[in-house]
Amino acid sequence: MENTTIKSGYAFPAQLPTYSPQHWFSFLFRFNQTDTIRKLYPMIILICVYSGLVAYLEMEVWQLNEKSYVRNISVMHSLLGFVISFLLVFRTNTAYERWWDGRRLWSQQVQHSRNLAIKLAAMLPDDAKERGYFRILIPAYASALLRHLNKKVPDQGNEMESLPGDLQVQLDYEKHIPNQYVGLMHQYLQNMFREGRLQWGQVLFVNPELQAFTEICASCERIRYTPIPRSYSSFLKKFIFIYIMTLPFGYVFNLGYFIIPIVAFVFYVLASLELIAEEIEDPFGGDDNDLPLLRIVQGIKSQVEEVL
Amino acid sequence: MENTTIKSGYAFPAQLPTYSPQHWFSFLFRFNQTDTIRKLYPMIILICVYSGLVAYLEMEVWQLNEKSYVRNISVMHSLLGFVISFLLVFRTNTAYERWWDGRRLWSQQVQHSRNLAIKLAAMLPDDAKERGYFRILIPAYASALLRHLNKKVPDQGNEMESLPGDLQVQLDYEKHIPNQYVGLMHQYLQNMFREGRLQWGQVLFVNPELQAFTEICASCERIRYTPIPRSYSSFLKKFIFIYIMTLPFGYVFNLGYFIIPIVAFVFYVLASLELIAEEIEDPFGGDDNDLPLLRIVQGIKSQVEEVL
Amino acid sequence: MENTTIKSGYAFPAQLPTYSPQHWFSFLFRFNQTDTIRKLYPMIILICVYSGLVAYLEMEVWQLNEKSYVRNISVMHSLLGFVISFLLVFRTNTAYERWWDGRRLWSQQVQHSRNLAIKLAAMLPDDAKERGYFRILIPAYASALLRHLNKKVPDQGNEMESLPGDLQVQLDYEKHIPNQYVGLMHQYLQNMFREGRLQWGQVLFVNPELQAFTEICASCERIRYTPIPRSYSSFLKKFIFIYIMTLPFGYVFNLGYFIIPIVAFVFYVLASLELIAEEIEDPFGGDDNDLPLLRIVQGIKSQVEEVL
Amino acid sequence: MENTTIKSGYAFPAQLPTYSPQHWFSFLFRFNQTDTIRKLYPMIILICVYSGLVAYLEMEVWQLNEKSYVRNISVMHSLLGFVISFLLVFRTNTAYERWWDGRRLWSQQVQHSRNLAIKLAAMLPDDAKERGYFRILIPAYASALLRHLNKKVPDQGNEMESLPGDLQVQLDYEKHIPNQYVGLMHQYLQNMFREGRLQWGQVLFVNPELQAFTEICASCERIRYTPIPRSYSSFLKKFIFIYIMTLPFGYVFNLGYFIIPIVAFVFYVLASLELIAEEIEDPFGGDDNDLPLLRIVQGIKSQVEEVL
Amino acid sequence: MENTTIKSGYAFPAQLPTYSPQHWFSFLFRFNQTDTIRKLYPMIILICVYSGLVAYLEMEVWQLNEKSYVRNISVMHSLLGFVISFLLVFRTNTAYERWWDGRRLWSQQVQHSRNLAIKLAAMLPDDAKERGYFRILIPAYASALLRHLNKKVPDQGNEMESLPGDLQVQLDYEKHIPNQYVGLMHQYLQNMFREGRLQWGQVLFVNPELQAFTEICASCERIRYTPIPRSYSSFLKKFIFIYIMTLPFGYVFNLGYFIIPIVAFVFYVLASLELIAEEIEDPFGGDDNDLPLLRIVQGIKSQVEEVL
Repeated sequence: MENTTIKSGYAFPAQLPTYSPQHWFSFLFRFNQTDTIRKLYPMIILICVYSGLVAYLEMEVWQLNEKSYVRNISVMHSLLGFVISFLLVFRTNTAYERWWDGRRLWSQQVQHSRNLAIKLAAMLPDDAKERGYFRILIPAYASALLRHLNKKVPDQGNEMESLPGDLQVQLDYEKHIPNQYVGLMHQYLQNMFREGRLQWGQVLFVNPELQAFTEICASCERIRYTPIPRSYSSFLKKFIFIYIMTLPFGYVFNLGYFIIPIVAFVFYVLASLELIAEEIEDPFGGDDNDLPLLRIVQGIKSQVEEVL
Repeated sequence: MENTTIKSGYAFPAQLPTYSPQHWFSFLFRFNQTDTIRKLYPMIILICVYSGLVAYLEMEVWQLNEKSYVRNISVMHSLLGFVISFLLVFRTNTAYERWWDGRRLWSQQVQHSRNLAIKLAAMLPDDAKERGYFRILIPAYASALLRHLNKKVPDQGNEMESLPGDLQVQLDYEKHIPNQYVGLMHQYLQNMFREGRLQWGQVLFVNPELQAFTEICASCERIRYTPIPRSYSSFLKKFIFIYIMTLPFGYVFNLGYFIIPIVAFVFYVLASLELIAEEIEDPFGGDDNDLPLLRIVQGIKSQVEEVL
Repeated sequence: MENTTIKSGYAFPAQLPTYSPQHWFSFLFRFNQTDTIRKLYPMIILICVYSGLVAYLEMEVWQLNEKSYVRNISVMHSLLGFVISFLLVFRTNTAYERWWDGRRLWSQQVQHSRNLAIKLAAMLPDDAKERGYFRILIPAYASALLRHLNKKVPDQGNEMESLPGDLQVQLDYEKHIPNQYVGLMHQYLQNMFREGRLQWGQVLFVNPELQAFTEICASCERIRYTPIPRSYSSFLKKFIFIYIMTLPFGYVFNLGYFIIPIVAFVFYVLASLELIAEEIEDPFGGDDNDLPLLRIVQGIKSQVEEVL
Repeated sequence: MENTTIKSGYAFPAQLPTYSPQHWFSFLFRFNQTDTIRKLYPMIILICVYSGLVAYLEMEVWQLNEKSYVRNISVMHSLLGFVISFLLVFRTNTAYERWWDGRRLWSQQVQHSRNLAIKLAAMLPDDAKERGYFRILIPAYASALLRHLNKKVPDQGNEMESLPGDLQVQLDYEKHIPNQYVGLMHQYLQNMFREGRLQWGQVLFVNPELQAFTEICASCERIRYTPIPRSYSSFLKKFIFIYIMTLPFGYVFNLGYFIIPIVAFVFYVLASLELIAEEIEDPFGGDDNDLPLLRIVQGIKSQVEEVL
Repeated sequence: MENTTIKSGYAFPAQLPTYSPQHWFSFLFRFNQTDTIRKLYPMIILICVYSGLVAYLEMEVWQLNEKSYVRNISVMHSLLGFVISFLLVFRTNTAYERWWDGRRLWSQQVQHSRNLAIKLAAMLPDDAKERGYFRILIPAYASALLRHLNKKVPDQGNEMESLPGDLQVQLDYEKHIPNQYVGLMHQYLQNMFREGRLQWGQVLFVNPELQAFTEICASCERIRYTPIPRSYSSFLKKFIFIYIMTLPFGYVFNLGYFIIPIVAFVFYVLASLELIAEEIEDPFGGDDNDLPLLRIVQGIKSQVEEVL
């Protein structure tokens, strides 16, 4: 999670490289932090040992012959092959939808922050004080929302302190922080209305943006704190486990000691899908797969400062 | 369903644990309340007895030989394997969508409750009476909606009684409770408008939130009272039943008495999916899989009290 | 379709029973009206006779031997097995989406009827005449919409006659009925505005609800009168037919006379899916699978009468 | 595309027939215009000839024996069977979504036309001139939109000529016609506002409908002029072609001359799906599968004339 | 990317050709720029060499016999065949959804530009200066958005220079360009409001369009700068690679040197899907598959100029 200052026009550098055959090869042999093999290799080694043991027992110790019923246990694996694939796709789809949903919400945060800043810039006179207030508070909201979703994001100094002394408000860190920021912005606008410096129509004019801030917060909380129903994830793990554990028995007859890499590879494929799904299900963490939220927050900051 | 008072900033503790291999193992051998095996084990035992009986009859009593046509009944199971998988995925998807839809609706309830409180806090003077009225009624609506959806939720005292005597209204418990709360809030605002203490623009300002309350209620009722078309669930149950009951006949030739655990496992997989789907289809119950609604209602309460 | 008066608080009794193993069994052996077997049994008998005939011809008359190419016709069935499954899932999904879409629309009808009643109740003085007008017209709209979608719904008396004489308007039954109701409500509000008894802001206040009434009507008409493209349903029926008709040829070699129940069961599964899809594709009929619209209309009526 | 005058209440006759076994049979043996077999039969004949040739060469000329590797080419077909099915389903789904999206847009056109007419009828005094203006222009917009999407729709006379002389405007047929109609309606309302015959609130009151007209037009253009990415359709056609052309080689060993009808049937199934998808991808044509737009436009016309 | 001036009524020529059998053939043997074979042929040749080598080693050098366990490695390929198909479909679906989402956003850009122009044309007097200002700025926004998304689009002259001198503003090209255009339009309207030449209601009247401009920009940035989670694309590439590399080992026994074209074809199919998905995932490039954005921008320009 880098922390450099970013110019607004270049807030999002192209992350989509051009794809070429050479590129493919580099993809194949690069095992970066997000690579599932880094997390799964202890279990893969265990599976290899287990498969080798099963193969040894069946072939050398018990010396099961071709007619043994054990051979046909693999019938179960082809019967259930569809079901396990379908479940993994279901898992992948729902996890990806949350991730993309999270991205959409932060895209809305960008849009509404921009719109609020542009509208206020057009509406307010060039009076430094009022513009300055929102110049601080709009990015502060985004920043607070990020820390609300992920406590591990480093605090970047108290934005409130940048405000002139009479506008500073002490936030209550025991309470819901993003709510307090939205509340402050609403109060400021209502005060301007009461003092006759804004018409009611102008308050309504910026209402959709402030309303959206709260909406985005509630939706992000929904994604952050509601994992997939426990029954599914628990059932899927049990299913993968039994599927893999029984896999060597039937196929030793066909594959001999080749069973070892093959069971390991099948496990790698199935467990990777479950693992990636678990990771992207919560898109607001700071992992390599997660959304570049710190970058987005900084983009909001530089864009709001440009406008106001 | 816990009942402790919760600070608003921590209303939703992180429920997404970090996943590690150790974690996986704990998942595998923990059979918590939601585990389908707890519900299915009587039927699994029945299936085992039945499969054993079929195997005994075919192998010992009738002594069917390799050429018997019975052997090839399994052809049907691979022909229909796709269809049954597809149907279960369809079932899983629709049930999950309802569950997630329910979660989205309650996320909207959180958001609109917050927004209504923040707007009123900004709009109303620091007059205790009016603020106090909505401080009671907004969370009371959420609480009433929860009881409306799930009669088993314990009544937590009459929120109305916390109001000053002249504002108390006797609800008619024979009628639609959430409607009455929304009606009361609308009337209160209209009265303030008639007394000249609110402008019409200000009434419109909080209208989207009150409108959303009724919308959320109708949508929750839709999810709660409209199960999947009876034809589908009835057909799917019949299909799974016949599929499992005919499974041992063909495979005894390949699997001998191994047929017993294998048919049991296939049944466990297929019936689990149907069972989980049935459970999460109605996300407003109080099961372990269902949404943590009591917790959400308490979060609304503490957040509204912070703001107003 | 029952017709009893229903208290609003209980308008939608829980239709989701608790599921237990005993429950499953009752599901298996109950063949209610919606059961596809009741509709398909004549064709299932035909299929049985046909399969038996094919088996008889191949085994007794032509005495095809193991080497006959006819044996391998089943290759085609496994090649096309995916495609037929995918198509049935596509069919099931689109039909279910229409059904659920229809339910969502009626849920909106409930919500907007409630909201309109609550808003009018808060806005209008306790003058019986005006409240009474909308108390009659809001549920009358829902009732007219239902009859508009399904001519077979029994007419429940002319709601107009419940109005005081000077407010009664003769509807033109040759024209679009729901449009006329919405038109009457709009005109009544505009008249109140012209007479100075409503502000323009108040007319706008209830506009979203009236606008939604027309929207719901147009969307219901879309679902009601636009079946799936004829090419798909025609192609799917031809495909199922040829698939089933050619099924016995290849499998007689493996299955002998067992082919009869197996082809019948495969047909039952495939045709049931098509049949259920056809039924729920039009969710506004009066079948057992269709939406409980009469019940919803009565719920709207009792709720509106409670509020206004 | 029929052209008769239709009463508004019956604008959309029930097109969903009741389904009975007899009905199914009629479906099977009716080859109407939309039937894919009418379009595919030249290619089906070619495929038959080709398959027969391959079978003749392999069996009579080259006399390949059972051990030939050619036999196992069919391995490829089962490996890729999934992929081709998935791709066809993807194709079917996206095409259907466009078709249904198009239907939804026209349903919105109906709804907004109705709403605009009802609102104007309530707002405008019974002054023939102004009502008459919109009575002509609202259906004229729908009609112009249809011709904008499908140049082959016959022009039904210039609607402008029905207007009184001083209201007639010469449209510029080189420019975007639907835009001009919306522009005329906006200008007429603004003129009424400038002349003091409408309040600004009333102009806003009908704004959502006029705004929706332009939105519907842009969305229809999107569906009409953006086919599926060329890479997909090109790739899918090549894939089907190679899949079918290589099909006979491997299966001749199993099927002999039976290969001819079987390859033809597989081709019929795969190509039909691609063909239907191509047809419904553009739902605004005048084919049998396309949307009954002329009928919808006439429904709009009769409904608007009823109301205004 | 053509650059000719286009009449607005014909901005989007029909790109959906009529399909005929002849047409299909032309599709099959045309390898245009978007054809994946042009990009994959170096890797296809490598795969062919590799498969040939494996076949040579197994058959000629090692002379593995029929009983070798190597033969059954193909078991793995059928076990994982589902999973790889599902993943490719997931990839295809998500990429297509982004592409279509991008198209929908530009369709909204068209619609809002039109609507803004039509509304302004109706609202503003025929004063050349103000109309001219928006006649330049509305298409300039679309053009700037396009360059913001794709730096390679050629700059088409500074639109600002077409404005009269006193209206020209120097844009800051280091900052976010589209934001500056929206800001200018907002400021211009607010100035007109302050000068009393617009009512506040009229500013609100065009607010939805200006708000939408920023929304579209943020959503396009989301699609442009957020590729699919790296874990998925990395995992999928590794999976395809290992799947293809191990494919020849098992199947040489069945297919001999036929393995070469077959492995090459399977690779072509799987890699094409991944490649096309990568291409359409970013729909704002200038490739043949990408959206015709330059054409759409020119359509906006000519339509706005017609109206204002």
